[in-house]
Amino acid sequence: MNYFFKPRQVAVVGASANRGKVGNSVLRNIIGSGYSGTIVPINPSAHEIEGLKCYPNITEAVQELGALDLVVVAVPAAAVIGVAQECAKNGCKNLVVITAGFKEVGKEGAALEKELVEICRSHHINLLGPNCLGMMDTHTPINASFAGDFPLRGEIAFISQSGALGTAILNWSRQQKIGFSQFVSLGNKAGLNEADFIAAAADDPNTKVILCYLENVVDGERFMDVARQTSRRKPVIIFKAGTSEAGARAASSHTGALAGNDRTYETVFKQCGILRVRRMEDLFALATVFLSQPLPKGDRVAILTNAGGPGIIAADAVESRGLAMARFCAETIEAMRAHLPAEANLLNPVDVIGDARADRYHFALEQIIQDPNVDGLIILLTPQAVTQPKETAEAIVDVKERHPDKPIVAAFMGGEAVADGAEHLRKNGIPCFSFPEPAVESFAYLSRYTKLRESTARQALPEFDFDRRRITEIIKGAMSDHRRILFASEGAEVLSLMGIPAAPTKLATTADQAVEIALEIGFPVVMKLEAPNVLHKSDLGGVKLNLRTEQEVAEAYHEIIANLHHHLPDTVAYGVEVQKMDQPGRECIIGMTCDQAFGPLLMFGLGGIYVNLLQDVSFRVVRGLDLTELQEMIRETKAYLLLKGIRGEKPGDVEAVVDTLARVAVLAREFPQINEIDINPLFVYEQGVSAVDVKITLRKVGTE
Amino acid sequence: MNYFFKPRQVAVVGASANRGKVGNSVLRNIIGSGYSGTIVPINPSAHEIEGLKCYPNITEAVQELGALDLVVVAVPAAAVIGVAQECAKNGCKNLVVITAGFKEVGKEGAALEKELVEICRSHHINLLGPNCLGMMDTHTPINASFAGDFPLRGEIAFISQSGALGTAILNWSRQQKIGFSQFVSLGNKAGLNEADFIAAAADDPNTKVILCYLENVVDGERFMDVARQTSRRKPVIIFKAGTSEAGARAASSHTGALAGNDRTYETVFKQCGILRVRRMEDLFALATVFLSQPLPKGDRVAILTNAGGPGIIAADAVESRGLAMARFCAETIEAMRAHLPAEANLLNPVDVIGDARADRYHFALEQIIQDPNVDGLIILLTPQAVTQPKETAEAIVDVKERHPDKPIVAAFMGGEAVADGAEHLRKNGIPCFSFPEPAVESFAYLSRYTKLRESTARQALPEFDFDRRRITEIIKGAMSDHRRILFASEGAEVLSLMGIPAAPTKLATTADQAVEIALEIGFPVVMKLEAPNVLHKSDLGGVKLNLRTEQEVAEAYHEIIANLHHHLPDTVAYGVEVQKMDQPGRECIIGMTCDQAFGPLLMFGLGGIYVNLLQDVSFRVVRGLDLTELQEMIRETKAYLLLKGIRGEKPGDVEAVVDTLARVAVLAREFPQINEIDINPLFVYEQGVSAVDVKITLRKVGTE
Repeated sequence: MNYFFKPRQVAVVGASANRGKVGNSVLRNIIGSGYSGTIVPINPSAHEIEGLKCYPNITEAVQELGALDLVVVAVPAAAVIGVAQECAKNGCKNLVVITAGFKEVGKEGAALEKELVEICRSHHINLLGPNCLGMMDTHTPINASFAGDFPLRGEIAFISQSGALGTAILNWSRQQKIGFSQFVSLGNKAGLNEADFIAAAADDPNTKVILCYLENVVDGERFMDVARQTSRRKPVIIFKAGTSEAGARAASSHTGALAGNDRTYETVFKQCGILRVRRMEDLFALATVFLSQPLPKGDRVAILTNAGGPGIIAADAVESRGLAMARFCAETIEAMRAHLPAEANLLNPVDVIGDARADRYHFALEQIIQDPNVDGLIILLTPQAVTQPKETAEAIVDVKERHPDKPIVAAFMGGEAVADGAEHLRKNGIPCFSFPEPAVESFAYLSRYTKLRESTARQALPEFDFDRRRITEIIKGAMSDHRRILFASEGAEVLSLMGIPAAPTKLATTADQAVEIALEIGFPVVMKLEAPNVLHKSDLGGVKLNLRTEQEVAEAYHEIIANLHHHLPDTVAYGVEVQKMDQPGRECIIGMTCDQAFGPLLMFGLGGIYVNLLQDVSFRVVRGLDLTELQEMIRETKAYLLLKGIRGEKPGDVEAVVDTLARVAVLAREFPQINEIDINPLFVYEQGVSAVDVKITLRKVGTE
Repeated sequence: MNYFFKPRQVAVVGASANRGKVGNSVLRNIIGSGYSGTIVPINPSAHEIEGLKCYPNITEAVQELGALDLVVVAVPAAAVIGVAQECAKNGCKNLVVITAGFKEVGKEGAALEKELVEICRSHHINLLGPNCLGMMDTHTPINASFAGDFPLRGEIAFISQSGALGTAILNWSRQQKIGFSQFVSLGNKAGLNEADFIAAAADDPNTKVILCYLENVVDGERFMDVARQTSRRKPVIIFKAGTSEAGARAASSHTGALAGNDRTYETVFKQCGILRVRRMEDLFALATVFLSQPLPKGDRVAILTNAGGPGIIAADAVESRGLAMARFCAETIEAMRAHLPAEANLLNPVDVIGDARADRYHFALEQIIQDPNVDGLIILLTPQAVTQPKETAEAIVDVKERHPDKPIVAAFMGGEAVADGAEHLRKNGIPCFSFPEPAVESFAYLSRYTKLRESTARQALPEFDFDRRRITEIIKGAMSDHRRILFASEGAEVLSLMGIPAAPTKLATTADQAVEIALEIGFPVVMKLEAPNVLHKSDLGGVKLNLRTEQEVAEAYHEIIANLHHHLPDTVAYGVEVQKMDQPGRECIIGMTCDQAFGPLLMFGLGGIYVNLLQDVSFRVVRGLDLTELQEMIRETKAYLLLKGIRGEKPGDVEAVVDTLARVAVLAREFPQINEIDINPLFVYEQGVSAVDVKITLRKVGTE
């Protein structure tokens, strides 16, 4: 995609001399951006537009000028296909289709879009759009869009799924003096999508921070791969809209019901090291902090203030954002004690009190920044009688220059009185907010990104041996029976074949057989009806617990069948499952559901009958999953506290739970026919686990 | 307190001609604020200061001028007592002590402060401070503080526990063009506190919105009474700092452990109808919205936008803030369909699309605002090719003027391009933000305040009959035994005396007696050791369940005593509790703990052994509690879903739970000797409840 952002020639198809038209705006924007390559207006009915020689079509332009690196299209939708074909014929590799009227307007447009994509795909043409604003690169420089606000040159790449939002942000950014390296309006994402532009920004030497406004992700797996790689090199900060979208997932499992759309994105972003912001304006505040500050070595914050109240507010924010208040070395405190007034607070937050001038800030700052227990600083200032905002700002800049390795974020509170101080800080690369909370918040993101980059080497899931043939056979058997849900006995067998301890379970179709099975697996046993479309077995007397003799088993068999006949006379049972009754253990749930965009999604949490009530669960996408992430997902839940042992209990076997999760992940990955898995409860013992109740659902035939 | 904010005369004790001194700043601030009453500098060593006749002391001033309504003190701490005595002698009723050096500097200062408070209390002098900035009233007008930034005249009262923060905000407010009616710096709150100034602002005809920055509340019960009354008249918006303060509560109960300091404030604010903000800057953004907009009739929001992205962002915010997206009437949609372009989205969010000029906004707005299903509007604008921000703003103002009864909040995104439109809105009383989320957020507060004001008439707790004498006897008995925790049998009796069904429990001191009790209350029974300082009875074999015969009971008695002797040879048992073993029900917890500031605090939630793990609990302060609040506190928990019946269960007896909560509240209110109560579990049946395990802890002797 190199010549996409740095084309040597750019053609505007649909270039127009009419100032109201998009084809004119685009052309003038390219000219106005200072683009130094060849600009080629294309329009069959003009000879010259905006002082440039105009060509009737791409073919003639290429014949005369040689290659065209980039073609921007602003002709009506119906004419776009022809342009794409011309590009294909003439070897043009980068196409920006600004034109609207495709998928977004209905069936016909969708067909047109499909045709466009086909041409581009088969000729390896990079397609941006259709229905987009275009793109910009301030370093090339080029503004190949119809947005007039060419941003200041900077180091932020901004990728936006909304064109209008992009326009608004570009306009706003000039006022805020925020610069960009690249800007891309994604449009319909028919060809290139967010993953491509994140990858491009990762490779762009002028980009240091990548921002995205996204409404969805189209190619989930590629997105995850790209984001994982990129986030270790440059911060990727995403605002995801559409959190209120009701999940369209038709779920027949606990796992499916609990894994909402937004929760899946949250999981994906976390696993890929993406920094997610929840408010639009935070995108840009954060970007400026990441651009100007080094990453802290840890999460220990020192707060310096000239007033108690703001210090408390900042300390509250430190706690609520999961940061730590730095504890100073004795030397730091002694040094401050010697030179600060007696009323000053020397512990963190350091309060140099209301009559502090710049020199006192300077002195305290100098001590604090050198303390090895301090990873970064939040500096607060309120305008009081003798406060010197400008000089204090200069002092901060001075200390920062001599100790550039620790991040500093400031909050100068007040209006006019602190304005020149705040301005001086910003000009010298120290972010300055108006209130303490956003300062702390931005530090929290810096610290999170540090952790993320430093996270230990990935430990791939182990290779497990399993009987692929037999599992496939079970799945195929159910499918040929038109059953979407495996029998409990089949589910238990599948888990066993995957190496997961499951309570032995077999399907009996006669009372005698039930007794035989019970004798084989050992008493006591549990018996459960297996019949089509019966969801709540207990409600119709389909479950019998704690059966201890042959006679009890035989009677239970007859009773269960009789109960079914009584409640649902037209339903014929498949049989009755006979299951070894396990010793109770701590109850967890492990589940899996398939997400349309991101594939198999693993769930862990507190099990039992109140799973939906308590919703104490965590998720991970299976793609690229590693062992550390499995441990993390357990630690995120309250179930972990239960496993660790509360009220003096001995701990449960967390390693066995990790192993089970890993095996379920492999099962999901290797058998895409499986749509959902619920293991609830998974009994967790001091040593080992047992899958007591297993429900495996297959994909509907005909769905991918 | 009328003459506090509107004094006819004001004296400045410690007035100084020296421009660097506080006593000079205060004097000049009063003069500079345009105060029209008599200004009286007091300083024994000057005849005239800042052109005003100076008096040597208050007595001489009063002799010559008559009364002094307000005395502002800026003399050294040691001299303040003398001034207060002079005030007392001369009938001065309002005293503002700016001087620092009291409680905040240690023991000596605290003694001085106590003396000051004594004088003021015994002479009914309103005391603000010491150690404060002073106060302002822009309508009087008077600036009786040493803060130079006299704010613009407005309708917001701002009460700040931090002087420096106050200064910063005053300075900032001038830049933001935010006006205030009153400003108070609370200082040490030795005399007047937040409750007094909230009450004063409630009565001030110039104040429409009350803002507070608080670090703590000193008189919890009065605060609650004042806040409850005030919040129904005017919005009270509070930012509470110090959320990270570790709770200093020494808790021996679940309830005590779960009721953290910040959680208590959250509960108090909710019960009093206070709007709490979590970020400092929201205080002021909200205040301007409350000042300019009417309250919505409900929570149904319509969104109008010219671009999809911002519409989605706003819709997300509507959902996450608990608001509802309005569903338009058919007529509204039809009217819009007739005149808006085919590509427009007519459902909520209404998207008038990118080429909308002011007239299209005007038309759509006119339709939407008249829709009876719409309670308020969020209007979004992004600058696109033909967008008319200024004219659109005018259109909004026009529609708003003709339909003033529905609140409108705008977000104009962009910089220069939308600046004049945004300015026009603000000038005409329509709040305009830069991003959609804060616009929706502020609407959410409007809507919450509506609900709060409309909340149904309060239903006081019923009067219960109970045997006060017997309960007092039980408590006294335990105290004279030096027991802080009542026996389980005593706890059960206290609950029974309060009319709460509790499993019959009696203390046996011999095996024979245990058998007798069991025969009396009926089998099966549970037996539990009762011995001093034994917390985990089960761990040392002190609990026996499901005892069904006389022999089992007798054996259990001996075993329990033997187990104690084995584990703790030096401990002598009080005896063994014999308790009727109840049928299991759904397990809830009801608890009570005493908060230092706010008194008894009631808790309800999911019970059982995992209370601390699940933390599914809600709280209410007992003071002023009503029945509706008890129902609400149940509905806030997941336990409520459990009681309603999940997975087809029949519902539990919620009314009996409400009744139990009410009786526990009365118990706590009527017996202040009780410090904590845990009823865990409370079994809830289809009909009725039973308190199975009861722990009642008394206050330490010597504490209040």
